[in-house]
Amino acid sequence: VSERPPPRSAAERRRDAEAILSARHADCWIATASPTGDAHLVPLSLAWVDGRVVLITPEATATVRNVVAMRTARVAAGATRDVVMVDVELEASAPLADTAPAVLEAFAGQADWDPRTNPEGMVALILRPVRVQVWREADEIAGRTIMRDGRWLV
Amino acid sequence: VSERPPPRSAAERRRDAEAILSARHADCWIATASPTGDAHLVPLSLAWVDGRVVLITPEATATVRNVVAMRTARVAAGATRDVVMVDVELEASAPLADTAPAVLEAFAGQADWDPRTNPEGMVALILRPVRVQVWREADEIAGRTIMRDGRWLV
Repeated sequence: VSERPPPRSAAERRRDAEAILSARHADCWIATASPTGDAHLVPLSLAWVDGRVVLITPEATATVRNVVAMRTARVAAGATRDVVMVDVELEASAPLADTAPAVLEAFAGQADWDPRTNPEGMVALILRPVRVQVWREADEIAGRTIMRDGRWLV
Repeated sequence: VSERPPPRSAAERRRDAEAILSARHADCWIATASPTGDAHLVPLSLAWVDGRVVLITPEATATVRNVVAMRTARVAAGATRDVVMVDVELEASAPLADTAPAVLEAFAGQADWDPRTNPEGMVALILRPVRVQVWREADEIAGRTIMRDGRWLV
């Protein structure tokens, strides 16, 4: 006898995913690969701005090098048993001075730090979701894809 | 004025890392790369057995394909602000029938599921740590490396 609630509907998963991505002080794990196949993984603060994942991190990092080279990454928000997995494509990367002020304002409003305080050497990565998968445990693997080819399925 | 405790010593970080890796029902995020540079990322249950990260997952997954092809991965345990980051090399991968019973017993003892119940198509990955980095927030980036070249520094 399980006390677990039934699997969520696609609409519930989208609502929950957007809540996790929009949460105050949200973090994520971002996995990237180098052109020669070295996997990298780091935790970063995340902002969800106009349907884009926005990350701000030093330019001199493997994450930035890999994303700029490969144009793709895989971003996990939530927790290991409350997953929001977002496959992304690089839409833009730029020093903060060349990033729209509204994006930096939105980032600072969601994160617990303001990148404008120490902008030197920092890059904003604007990442466009192409696939979103949302699941908690094994019973939610079926139906986990709620965005495909950049389009919400619900 | 910060209420945050001072950065942990290397010895404290090793103790905390081993506690996180040994925790009952521990999960991790594992990042892998394909030979052509596609990053993959999934959450999996983790067991810490004789100084190795042990993961058990279906053979027909990108994680297994990538690890077998590239022989390396990057495994994060803990949380985004309480990180244990383990760069690993593949020591062995085998179907459960060809995996030491003691390893499966240890896995089942730590995880909240027993892979021996449904072993068909499953693979055990025995991953040897080569670097371990442990940090909570920015003030702990310095001193985060507590294992290098497979050797604990403390």
